[in-house]
Amino acid sequence: MNPHEYTQVNDRTFLFSGHELPEDERELIRLRRDFHRHPESAWTEYRTTAVILRELRAAGIPVLYGPSLHEPSCMYGLPRPEAAEEAFRRAAGELGGDGEILPMRGGFTGCMAIIEGGLPGPVKILRVDIDCNEVAESRSAEHRPFREGFSSVHEGLTHACGHDGHAAIGVVTAKMIARHRDRLPGTVKILFQPGEEGLRGAASMAAAGVADDVSFLFGGHLGLTLTKPGAVAASAVAILSSTKLDLRFEGKAAHAGMYPQLGRNALGAAAAAVTNMLAIARHGDGASRINIGTLHAGSGRNVIPSSAEMRLETRGETAEINRYMLGEVRRIARAAADMYGCSLTETIMGSADSAESSPALVEHEMALLRQMKEVGEVIREQKFGAGEDVTTLMQVVQDRGGQAAELMFGTPLAAPHHNGSFDFDEAVLLLAAKVFAEIMFSL
Amino acid sequence: MNPHEYTQVNDRTFLFSGHELPEDERELIRLRRDFHRHPESAWTEYRTTAVILRELRAAGIPVLYGPSLHEPSCMYGLPRPEAAEEAFRRAAGELGGDGEILPMRGGFTGCMAIIEGGLPGPVKILRVDIDCNEVAESRSAEHRPFREGFSSVHEGLTHACGHDGHAAIGVVTAKMIARHRDRLPGTVKILFQPGEEGLRGAASMAAAGVADDVSFLFGGHLGLTLTKPGAVAASAVAILSSTKLDLRFEGKAAHAGMYPQLGRNALGAAAAAVTNMLAIARHGDGASRINIGTLHAGSGRNVIPSSAEMRLETRGETAEINRYMLGEVRRIARAAADMYGCSLTETIMGSADSAESSPALVEHEMALLRQMKEVGEVIREQKFGAGEDVTTLMQVVQDRGGQAAELMFGTPLAAPHHNGSFDFDEAVLLLAAKVFAEIMFSL
Amino acid sequence: MNPHEYTQVNDRTFLFSGHELPEDERELIRLRRDFHRHPESAWTEYRTTAVILRELRAAGIPVLYGPSLHEPSCMYGLPRPEAAEEAFRRAAGELGGDGEILPMRGGFTGCMAIIEGGLPGPVKILRVDIDCNEVAESRSAEHRPFREGFSSVHEGLTHACGHDGHAAIGVVTAKMIARHRDRLPGTVKILFQPGEEGLRGAASMAAAGVADDVSFLFGGHLGLTLTKPGAVAASAVAILSSTKLDLRFEGKAAHAGMYPQLGRNALGAAAAAVTNMLAIARHGDGASRINIGTLHAGSGRNVIPSSAEMRLETRGETAEINRYMLGEVRRIARAAADMYGCSLTETIMGSADSAESSPALVEHEMALLRQMKEVGEVIREQKFGAGEDVTTLMQVVQDRGGQAAELMFGTPLAAPHHNGSFDFDEAVLLLAAKVFAEIMFSL
Amino acid sequence: MNPHEYTQVNDRTFLFSGHELPEDERELIRLRRDFHRHPESAWTEYRTTAVILRELRAAGIPVLYGPSLHEPSCMYGLPRPEAAEEAFRRAAGELGGDGEILPMRGGFTGCMAIIEGGLPGPVKILRVDIDCNEVAESRSAEHRPFREGFSSVHEGLTHACGHDGHAAIGVVTAKMIARHRDRLPGTVKILFQPGEEGLRGAASMAAAGVADDVSFLFGGHLGLTLTKPGAVAASAVAILSSTKLDLRFEGKAAHAGMYPQLGRNALGAAAAAVTNMLAIARHGDGASRINIGTLHAGSGRNVIPSSAEMRLETRGETAEINRYMLGEVRRIARAAADMYGCSLTETIMGSADSAESSPALVEHEMALLRQMKEVGEVIREQKFGAGEDVTTLMQVVQDRGGQAAELMFGTPLAAPHHNGSFDFDEAVLLLAAKVFAEIMFSL
Repeated sequence: MNPHEYTQVNDRTFLFSGHELPEDERELIRLRRDFHRHPESAWTEYRTTAVILRELRAAGIPVLYGPSLHEPSCMYGLPRPEAAEEAFRRAAGELGGDGEILPMRGGFTGCMAIIEGGLPGPVKILRVDIDCNEVAESRSAEHRPFREGFSSVHEGLTHACGHDGHAAIGVVTAKMIARHRDRLPGTVKILFQPGEEGLRGAASMAAAGVADDVSFLFGGHLGLTLTKPGAVAASAVAILSSTKLDLRFEGKAAHAGMYPQLGRNALGAAAAAVTNMLAIARHGDGASRINIGTLHAGSGRNVIPSSAEMRLETRGETAEINRYMLGEVRRIARAAADMYGCSLTETIMGSADSAESSPALVEHEMALLRQMKEVGEVIREQKFGAGEDVTTLMQVVQDRGGQAAELMFGTPLAAPHHNGSFDFDEAVLLLAAKVFAEIMFSL
Repeated sequence: MNPHEYTQVNDRTFLFSGHELPEDERELIRLRRDFHRHPESAWTEYRTTAVILRELRAAGIPVLYGPSLHEPSCMYGLPRPEAAEEAFRRAAGELGGDGEILPMRGGFTGCMAIIEGGLPGPVKILRVDIDCNEVAESRSAEHRPFREGFSSVHEGLTHACGHDGHAAIGVVTAKMIARHRDRLPGTVKILFQPGEEGLRGAASMAAAGVADDVSFLFGGHLGLTLTKPGAVAASAVAILSSTKLDLRFEGKAAHAGMYPQLGRNALGAAAAAVTNMLAIARHGDGASRINIGTLHAGSGRNVIPSSAEMRLETRGETAEINRYMLGEVRRIARAAADMYGCSLTETIMGSADSAESSPALVEHEMALLRQMKEVGEVIREQKFGAGEDVTTLMQVVQDRGGQAAELMFGTPLAAPHHNGSFDFDEAVLLLAAKVFAEIMFSL
Repeated sequence: MNPHEYTQVNDRTFLFSGHELPEDERELIRLRRDFHRHPESAWTEYRTTAVILRELRAAGIPVLYGPSLHEPSCMYGLPRPEAAEEAFRRAAGELGGDGEILPMRGGFTGCMAIIEGGLPGPVKILRVDIDCNEVAESRSAEHRPFREGFSSVHEGLTHACGHDGHAAIGVVTAKMIARHRDRLPGTVKILFQPGEEGLRGAASMAAAGVADDVSFLFGGHLGLTLTKPGAVAASAVAILSSTKLDLRFEGKAAHAGMYPQLGRNALGAAAAAVTNMLAIARHGDGASRINIGTLHAGSGRNVIPSSAEMRLETRGETAEINRYMLGEVRRIARAAADMYGCSLTETIMGSADSAESSPALVEHEMALLRQMKEVGEVIREQKFGAGEDVTTLMQVVQDRGGQAAELMFGTPLAAPHHNGSFDFDEAVLLLAAKVFAEIMFSL
Repeated sequence: MNPHEYTQVNDRTFLFSGHELPEDERELIRLRRDFHRHPESAWTEYRTTAVILRELRAAGIPVLYGPSLHEPSCMYGLPRPEAAEEAFRRAAGELGGDGEILPMRGGFTGCMAIIEGGLPGPVKILRVDIDCNEVAESRSAEHRPFREGFSSVHEGLTHACGHDGHAAIGVVTAKMIARHRDRLPGTVKILFQPGEEGLRGAASMAAAGVADDVSFLFGGHLGLTLTKPGAVAASAVAILSSTKLDLRFEGKAAHAGMYPQLGRNALGAAAAAVTNMLAIARHGDGASRINIGTLHAGSGRNVIPSSAEMRLETRGETAEINRYMLGEVRRIARAAADMYGCSLTETIMGSADSAESSPALVEHEMALLRQMKEVGEVIREQKFGAGEDVTTLMQVVQDRGGQAAELMFGTPLAAPHHNGSFDFDEAVLLLAAKVFAEIMFSL
């Protein structure tokens, strides 16, 4: 496989630049808003997957889904069984029955569309993520989804990272490609991945082999550090390595008034852990991050708290820096437990290393993007600045000799990602769908 | 009123020492176990109150209950309305209807039995507390309530402080006294107070005037520092002053990977507050206590936590020491909020100062107790070592020229108070009921 | 030996109550002010001891001093050799030569006067402490020693605990007794102990056997919780158990700008230790204390601090509580070192358990004190509220069947003990000397 | 002024590449080792300056020194007067008299050589720094300076950042240029700047106007992130902005055993400040740093510590990030003081923003370096990764229309900078001197 050959042959195709159907954009917006209204968090994207299935099947596109897309031992950070079951029932209610989603029960969400082209060519995959954030959505009149009536109907959940848009892009890109499948070289797969938040979903799909036969893999993200409308970056750089970790400190309860000395204060241990983890020395070789996102400790006001649970994450500009951070976190957790005479349990809830887009593929994208009139600015490298488990799939492809790239699409943002007021300019949806579609025909 | 006169007249009565009915103890144990099975926390003692009402009415004892027993502005630490309502519905379900408890809706729990004696005499009140702890009960075979099938049916709630026993003592003492009401001097009230845990319930009953006409007030507690079976202390000393405080830190969420500097970490503030509050300098004049019982912070793993809530309490051997602790706590909370750029909200959830039993009344008790053959050891002063809002009622009585005493009843304990494995020797129940009944006839 | 017999025989002696010589008080004040001007800290009381020697010898009282009074392996908390040597040279300079103090070189300070009585009787010992505090003295005009020209000439040192007065009391008491030695039953020893601050000096003298042959031991302290002039307490209670500990964290230096991750931040470890040690849970059984008195860490501003040294102490109302505190301190220190990847060195610098005055001896004192007209108020038990290594000597005597008591002498204080503005009413000196002298003749 | 013109005219000069005198390297090593043996910290470089003066004067090069080179109001972080005076006397002793250094007394150290060229041309300045670190030097046999007998004779001071080499390079570069001054275009100044450590010295020299008439300014640093022998970087990037700050917490002493509640624990405040400053959120836009280099707190073991002093520094990849860090530090310091009821004093001890080398000048250097056969590898941009107050002088020159560059010279290092075992390969000295000399002739 030599991408430059494909480049020679295909790079003047331009089926979509300026030639999309009017309904493409309407559909993108309709789907994005539907997903936005019904956000589902990692491993519970039952309704989201079902809607994608319905759309693709209606367009005559074959789709795989269910347990065959996952390796159970790598499904990181599954929700508690009751919460998972509650989400399943909620989706069944919304869908008018659980028939479509029964094969997904237990977290086997997501799906993969497969479009066979009419011309010989390589296998290419577009991966989009579909899960929401566990963040409460703004109910301010300044927040467009609320004002215009498509804000989240699920309390405490919202799409605050644009995956509603990503899912819509995936569906419409599939339809656009399928419309011209006779002129498509090779095969295109569209992988709708659950659980990107928390870096949970990619590992199980990678381990199930979804990307094993792929020559080219593409991912994409809207917004983030790229807020200029019309700008497209051929490659995201500085995708942080990250590990998601749950810690539980167990101490001993005691009456705080009578026998304070008999307690083993798990909250004391947790507080020491929090402060000293935030205080981990910065790394001289690049960016490092630590966040203790949640802490829940104690039972009653007058009882020495006997347990404390925290959910945290580390990140590093390189895998080595992330390992440094994780090592420090573990040492501090251990010591904080010892300091207060508590025991400690650790559970890895998600993990992804950094990855770099393949240089030759980026070169190919650059040539293509420069010729698309919708693309207002072509950027070679754009800082990503966060974690993304597309890297796990990129590594699979690159390790097997293929090429991979993570693109970025510019859009103004109403608020930072993961904030309850997050919103983006929906014009970015059509831009992204056309870029992905063109790329698939160009290789 | 001169207690010594009553002492002269009545102290050889002994209606109950050695003469109780066989069913008295059976009833004490039956009631205690019923209450134990159905624990209800502060301001939700709907079923508990209803059972007490049924028992007392069946014995022909008049009972007051509902809003007239409470001053709403002093009902400290009410639960959230939804939680209160859920508890109300749960109790209605258990009782087979909400008819009896409708007047209590909104937290107006507890009741007051009134037994008019056939002889002239003073008004005397026995106050017992009836609420449970927000502690999960042990499910170990070594835990008798679990082994014998009367453990809590309410998840996360249990009677781990003996108030199930106190409530039973209140009921049976009332019945014992009523059996001989013709020989009773004056009037006896039995006050079943909700919300002792957290020092929440006494203030509203005191403000409603339940103890305004009272010459003698008695409270009692089983266990605590008195673990010798048969021992009775005429007065508890070192009842700690205490204040219950809720704190809420509000910061600002931000994506922990991309813009950590834009967040205002409420968990960071809370952790700094926890550690430095625990580090408040001890007081040279006596015992001080601080406990941060619970902390809940943050929303998602990769979001800088924007809020943190903690429930804490201070205690002091004297009111002055408690004020010192509370002052330090507030200063630290304020500074911790400033340190992390967060705002702070404080809410007082309960409060009671220390109080001392009236010396002359203690003398009278001593004389009586020494003559009761069930009392294995008579102790003048026993260290209480915890807070108790009976002190609020004691102060009302003492301020109006009456006398008050808090007794203690010895029993071996299976585990410390407020521990999920707490249990006591039920033999203490009859002892306490007889002591209280004798006292009421002796004054 | 039966103190009550002695009590019978001697308790109407009263040689000094109202009959002291006019020069006794002048001498007490002269000596106290001389010691105050030349404060010497633990194990460097060279000049102080020499002045005591000169005074006693001038009065014809034999004195022992030098290495025979100490067991080297128990000389806790010796200063650094250079500091010790500098103090030695300073004292030699002040004394006009090192002849007298050569035998003390290396810390063998303190001395013991021996007065043989003319009558048969037991061996009795009065122990006084002579060292100063490492506290800078106030230079305010409100501070009498400064205003009247006898404030410390040694920077950073001052007598802020009254040991200048104790030493003066020891000397004058010896002279008073010696004046009447023919009427003295048995033998009186006056032990001038170095290094009470930090609980350093008693152990080595006890191990050297100074109290092995003693039937009665007395110690005394002015001020503390007893601020009423003329009041004398026959026994100090609540002498806290205490341990003095030095900790050293060793980490690894690194350039803080370039390679922060390579450092091992000993100051970080120490700060975590400080905060979490202050946060050790209070003990339900009685008073506990923790103080980290000093911390010195780091070398340069831009270097990750590679070492940190702290000097701390724990105290407990009982030996068990002190052991609890010390155990927690050690666990926290160990964990703080682990938390920051540092190593830890611990050195015990001083230690003394609590002790109780012998009841029979206290009874004897009470009888005597009540008859002394100078004593304005006789108190049986006075809270001491601090540590005192006289307890080590008390235990030796009590373990061998003798009796011991620690007295307290009331005086108003200008500022709390160990404060740079500490001062007391010198009238307490004569009171104390007379009480001790009378006691020695009464047994 | 157009550097490219100069480039055209002069860039084939090569007076030194391959043509230096044999004594040049011997002299570099001799001087470096002499400086290494006699390290002097910021504002006390009396002997160092005197040796430089002697060397330059012996070579017939005019030198300015003394107060005219400094603006007193900008002399950041001067040592305490006694320490400064002690260093002055020490230097006088080493030099055999204080005649040469009298004009420098009070910190006016450093000097500036001026070499007038025989050809017309611009004014160019080479700035080298000459101060040492306050770090104890290794006394291990593996440490070459110790093994070979030129390790520091001043306790607690050593050249652990290579400024001994920089000073030697400055002297020998001056001599090399002076040897050929007839062929030199314009004027070369060699500025020997004191107090680079702590970013203390550049501001006062810049304010005194030493760089006001300069067209080109050069600085250079050996080692750091460039450890390959023979490598030369034309420009250092990521010179961190930095601020040096001293903080003093003042609380209140109290006896830790008796009245702990009366103290105001300055060490408690400092420990809270240390941990929470280390925990300042990382900045999403680039590298940030915080180091609390030293902390000294408390007086005696049993006294609540009433004062604590810390020396710290912040750094930022950009001036904005440094301002963020400094703002957080100040907020935390303020809050930590409040938390423990202490007062706070802040003193700025040094400060420098980041600066970037001028692109055209870097281009010129690149061309020159590529032609020098001694230069094994030419690097355009090398990460500096630390602070450097040469930036203050660079900004002066760039603000006035001139150009500036900070070079880096590769050398293996025995240990990281600021570590007591720091050492470098002395071959880098001649390389650097030749590069600087060539550059001066090329412009």
